Amino acid sequence: MFRSRKTILSAIILLAAVIGLGAEQGMWMPQQIPDLAARLRTLGFTGDPKAFADLTGQPMGAIVSLGGCTASFVSPDGLIVTNHHCVTGGLQFNSTAQRNLLTDGFLAKTRDEELSNGPGSRVFVTTSVKDVTEAIVGRFDASATDRQRNDTIDRRIKERVAACEKGGLRCNVTSFFEGLKYFEIAQLEIRDVRLVYAPAEGIGVFGGETDNWRWPRHTGDWSFVRAYVGKDGKPAAYAKDNVPYKPAHWLKVSAQGTKPGDLVFVVGYPGRTLRHRTFTEIKETTEWALPRSVRLAEEQLALINTLTASNKELAIKLSGRIQGLNNGLTNTKGVLEGLVKGGALGVKEAQEKALMAWMAAIPARQKQYGDVLPALAALQAEGEKVRERNAVISALPSASSYLGAAQTLYRLSMQRPKNDLDRDAGFQERDWSRIREGLDRMQRSLDAVADRAFLRWALQLAAALPADQRIEPVDKAVGLRAGLAPAEADRAIGGFLETLYAGTKMGDRDIRLALIEKSTAELTAANDSFIALAAALEPLAESIRDTAKNRAGAYARLRPRYMQALLAKAGGLVAPDANSTLRVTYGQVKGVDGKDGLFYKPQTGLAGILEKQTGEGDFNAPKKQIEAISAFLKTRKSPYLDPAIKDVPVNFLSTVDTTGGNSGSPTLNARGELVGLLFDGTYESVSSDYLFDEVKTRSIHVDSRYMLWNMAEVDGASNLIKEMAIAPPAAPARGAGGGQKVAVKK
Amino acid sequence: MFRSRKTILSAIILLAAVIGLGAEQGMWMPQQIPDLAARLRTLGFTGDPKAFADLTGQPMGAIVSLGGCTASFVSPDGLIVTNHHCVTGGLQFNSTAQRNLLTDGFLAKTRDEELSNGPGSRVFVTTSVKDVTEAIVGRFDASATDRQRNDTIDRRIKERVAACEKGGLRCNVTSFFEGLKYFEIAQLEIRDVRLVYAPAEGIGVFGGETDNWRWPRHTGDWSFVRAYVGKDGKPAAYAKDNVPYKPAHWLKVSAQGTKPGDLVFVVGYPGRTLRHRTFTEIKETTEWALPRSVRLAEEQLALINTLTASNKELAIKLSGRIQGLNNGLTNTKGVLEGLVKGGALGVKEAQEKALMAWMAAIPARQKQYGDVLPALAALQAEGEKVRERNAVISALPSASSYLGAAQTLYRLSMQRPKNDLDRDAGFQERDWSRIREGLDRMQRSLDAVADRAFLRWALQLAAALPADQRIEPVDKAVGLRAGLAPAEADRAIGGFLETLYAGTKMGDRDIRLALIEKSTAELTAANDSFIALAAALEPLAESIRDTAKNRAGAYARLRPRYMQALLAKAGGLVAPDANSTLRVTYGQVKGVDGKDGLFYKPQTGLAGILEKQTGEGDFNAPKKQIEAISAFLKTRKSPYLDPAIKDVPVNFLSTVDTTGGNSGSPTLNARGELVGLLFDGTYESVSSDYLFDEVKTRSIHVDSRYMLWNMAEVDGASNLIKEMAIAPPAAPARGAGGGQKVAVKK
Repeated sequence: MFRSRKTILSAIILLAAVIGLGAEQGMWMPQQIPDLAARLRTLGFTGDPKAFADLTGQPMGAIVSLGGCTASFVSPDGLIVTNHHCVTGGLQFNSTAQRNLLTDGFLAKTRDEELSNGPGSRVFVTTSVKDVTEAIVGRFDASATDRQRNDTIDRRIKERVAACEKGGLRCNVTSFFEGLKYFEIAQLEIRDVRLVYAPAEGIGVFGGETDNWRWPRHTGDWSFVRAYVGKDGKPAAYAKDNVPYKPAHWLKVSAQGTKPGDLVFVVGYPGRTLRHRTFTEIKETTEWALPRSVRLAEEQLALINTLTASNKELAIKLSGRIQGLNNGLTNTKGVLEGLVKGGALGVKEAQEKALMAWMAAIPARQKQYGDVLPALAALQAEGEKVRERNAVISALPSASSYLGAAQTLYRLSMQRPKNDLDRDAGFQERDWSRIREGLDRMQRSLDAVADRAFLRWALQLAAALPADQRIEPVDKAVGLRAGLAPAEADRAIGGFLETLYAGTKMGDRDIRLALIEKSTAELTAANDSFIALAAALEPLAESIRDTAKNRAGAYARLRPRYMQALLAKAGGLVAPDANSTLRVTYGQVKGVDGKDGLFYKPQTGLAGILEKQTGEGDFNAPKKQIEAISAFLKTRKSPYLDPAIKDVPVNFLSTVDTTGGNSGSPTLNARGELVGLLFDGTYESVSSDYLFDEVKTRSIHVDSRYMLWNMAEVDGASNLIKEMAIAPPAAPARGAGGGQKVAVKK
Repeated sequence: MFRSRKTILSAIILLAAVIGLGAEQGMWMPQQIPDLAARLRTLGFTGDPKAFADLTGQPMGAIVSLGGCTASFVSPDGLIVTNHHCVTGGLQFNSTAQRNLLTDGFLAKTRDEELSNGPGSRVFVTTSVKDVTEAIVGRFDASATDRQRNDTIDRRIKERVAACEKGGLRCNVTSFFEGLKYFEIAQLEIRDVRLVYAPAEGIGVFGGETDNWRWPRHTGDWSFVRAYVGKDGKPAAYAKDNVPYKPAHWLKVSAQGTKPGDLVFVVGYPGRTLRHRTFTEIKETTEWALPRSVRLAEEQLALINTLTASNKELAIKLSGRIQGLNNGLTNTKGVLEGLVKGGALGVKEAQEKALMAWMAAIPARQKQYGDVLPALAALQAEGEKVRERNAVISALPSASSYLGAAQTLYRLSMQRPKNDLDRDAGFQERDWSRIREGLDRMQRSLDAVADRAFLRWALQLAAALPADQRIEPVDKAVGLRAGLAPAEADRAIGGFLETLYAGTKMGDRDIRLALIEKSTAELTAANDSFIALAAALEPLAESIRDTAKNRAGAYARLRPRYMQALLAKAGGLVAPDANSTLRVTYGQVKGVDGKDGLFYKPQTGLAGILEKQTGEGDFNAPKKQIEAISAFLKTRKSPYLDPAIKDVPVNFLSTVDTTGGNSGSPTLNARGELVGLLFDGTYESVSSDYLFDEVKTRSIHVDSRYMLWNMAEVDGASNLIKEMAIAPPAAPARGAGGGQKVAVKK
């Protein structure tokens, strides 16, 4: 569909080039890139855009997903580079009281020293993307109820996935354009991933929460892992004698980096954008969901502060949670600022009014689309009636890992007796090993005292629910009711928790894992208080899932038509919202106006690290790095020097369009070489997840030269530099950027 | 002396212009400006630099001192514009529980509504500057002791001042170039100053402490007062039927502002710089004085926080103190950052080593100057032995206004019986009215509970002094001794304060003022506990003053020779350190690189106010202004629009060299029109008080267009716009800047 409007698109593209828009909207599906040839030429690209559509060629074949993060092969021996913040879990998993890899960093000088990155760590290599729209949503009985529609789509997807996975790959069928299109994506799933190198926290997380989502930035957000497979070359679970995976393609890491004005590509797995949601939906998000999310994050962070004030060990256990909450909090605040204060919400409203006017302008159109927005609004209004209750029900297992585990175990026991295709998504055979890994991995962040404090907090949310949105099984189990005085509710919760935690073994890894295979009856017989709570919650949870299926069917009926209208009105090539599938974005290395009176220069350098260094908290670069920087600043000589800024570039800004999930994505120059790693966006960009801001949006990358400089001068990672076959440039002269064809290496 | 090296200077100046140095070092004495003609021409000035040397001409005759701040006449009826933060005292003085002028702002729509700016408020118009070096330090007996030298200089200054003031002017003899030169400065002293207009705090202090010393900035830091004189046209104390003063010169306020690259002048009264101190002195400052100042400010702010937590009225009373402490704290931290982390101290050390090498290079020079640095270092080492004690003794009356008043009264009673020329400086007849005003004015910020808390804090400092630096009268009065456990010391201090505050009437304005005329015996008989404490402290205070006089004599012998060496080595025109006398600086409107990765654009606009506005705390612009800005942003139309930034400019940066005391200084364009008001410097600039940073130093100004826009659109100050005879520009076209001669208006 989006291929049919090339002419109009070119005009739009040309206009954009002429008026010099800043940021480049579009997380493009790889197969869309050839249609963007005109824009790419305007930006100076003379290579073949079709290279990006070939998932098994260079460079696309080198780019992988870690599930939530992106990464790329950088050597023929399966060496992978990604962000530091994408391996926090692995570093934590391998840390001991004596040796904190998170704080100190890690470097395997030999293959033997490489450590398992932890259960559940994965590398996914996308091998094919097939349009299966007709198979999933074709041939529908027009008289089908919403529930039938949902169930049919669900069943068709499961069937396709099952057929696809027979070949030994991991497959997903994913909705694009709000269900207007479905694609089947097949991925090779590598299950033995090992930690190779990560810099110290003072480099990899330099700036911490203070600098997170901000510019100027000086974060060394890189790390290396390696993919291992069985001796037969096939994916296998971790085993000592597995061998490094031999990728068909890997990226060349550039020792020359990039410079302002250069064309860059970012290939990766952006997680989720909501640009194609209705104004009414975004409005609810700004008025309810996001402010609620801010409040809850702040409450949890305050709770963690109290818990960890005099408990450093617990602070390490909760570090992932703390980072996640802070990261989300700043992002959410940025989104609210952009949408409400920055006026994006008003723009969205105007766009929707224009869409309605466009529909109303022609009777045929009005007939075709006129009912969609009111119907979507009605669905939303219906959902709002129980949103508080449903949000709290979701919060319970998120707050308490004990409860989360119990609910997973209980539900699995109810799903297991069914035929695999009848099992709920997430509980099919294909999911079991991941369920096991999750129940195993949770141990590293588990703490009974903290778990109880979080559950207390979540139950307080439940206690405060209005009379028409009570969670009855919780009320009954705890002894709560609407309107109970907070002090009384607290007392009831306190008593309940006392019994609950006294009556469980859910915190014991072995016992927990042993329960995975048990039937519902056996689980019940285990007489664990958390299993009992999960069982009590299950009927309500099931009824909520039931309602959700009806609603999903209705959305599956309505959203594609809404999208159709949007696309028809837009009349050009449009990128689908991000959905964790492989995308290509492009743009230029470029600074941007910050707040009034400030310009964000496109690059930062080593000198800025010294400027920020305080030796504590978020600005605590290791002594060795500080010394190396001080030494460098005396001479300003390094093979990685950028002569224009007279410094080794640390981070840079670009106009590419990215979001969470893109973390770790390679930043490629026009020759397909890795010149950086995408790791963040600016605070002013985050509302672009809802409505793209062409002026302010900027992504933040770490420059490959900083990574190489640090590997050489600070961390002594010469073994990896050698493996990547990087020779520092003889002279600091740099290519003109753009111009060359994307090379095919193999 | 500094006139004799014009040729070398021109070469230096040319070099500076060619290599494009950022900031322009030099707070020049007005008479030095004609010698800077070459540099001014390079910057595009085609007017006559001699105009700046004529203190009674245009524009210099329009520029006045408020004592601590600078201001300028802007109408023939004595209307004066200065910074908002220069009239905080007046606004506080006129505020009542019902009407808080500080918060809400103030506008007198008619002359009748103008309010006294408070006792002690002054306008000084410099009328002449005479070189009196020979009269002060000439004809010295080479065998004079240091004490004789000090006393002779002191006596000669007093005699000159007395002779000068016979004409009805206020006179001062001030040391320049570390005592190498002395100038006698005569000023007209206007004593009836009235409050005319100040915007609301949310405009005048927008950004508060958060933005203080920072860029980007959006502060409306202006206010208007009016000078009144007796009906005979002569300065007189406040009287209802005084009449507006008719200045010989006043500035034209430009409705067209200024733009990046424009040449600007700032004329004002910079307070103090220490660029000509030795490395050893600056080192002590960074190692002892400034860290101590940071610690003490933080302790006092914490104390104030506790005191005012639930006492809003007290917070208002202490607002001046809070602002002063915060302002100083940020400045001090910035100085430390620039000197220590920024490496300025290292540069200073290198400069001094170069100076020593220069001295040692020629035996005659070594003979002439070789002893000076060691002698200065020895003097300093001697002073360091009692620095803690002396600092605490100074802190006592600063902490407690009760004690400060008692000490002033007691010392005055001891000085009064002497001949006027024998009285200590500050206690001569010419000082008495100011002493009275000070004792009167202190009432507005007086609070017994707060005073006691501050004195307790200062006494704790005294309690903690080392054994060899005890303040014996305090030890005796309070019952303290070296090494006393803090808890015991606190108990002793508590008991002492109980008695002290029970036995005083120093907090009663009328009683306090009635004590001014009393003899020492009468004061003693008044039986006030604070007078008794002051009397007990007096012998030690007198002995410290005595030592200080000996040291001052030694410095008077050494520093001029040190300065002579510096000047001889520098071999060019050098500006003397700031000393609260009238100076002229010039530079360009220009942005600057901020921290690594940031560029500070040269101008901010109204849009930035909306960006920063939170509606609370430091970012709480009044609703009326927010509405006016919102309305403006819809059309971007205003006679005050800057077409280049498509906004009404709010603040701007320039390369002029300024410091505290310059606050309120007019920023003049090349035609001598007021295009802005100087009100601050950037954080990166503050260490320039010690060593000028040619790259980073920037001053911050409020644009005249913001002031006029706000007066017209928000505050309805049309009466003043009319009085200043400002017609908005017909079109927003703007002059090229530079080029025209400084006009002489009268």
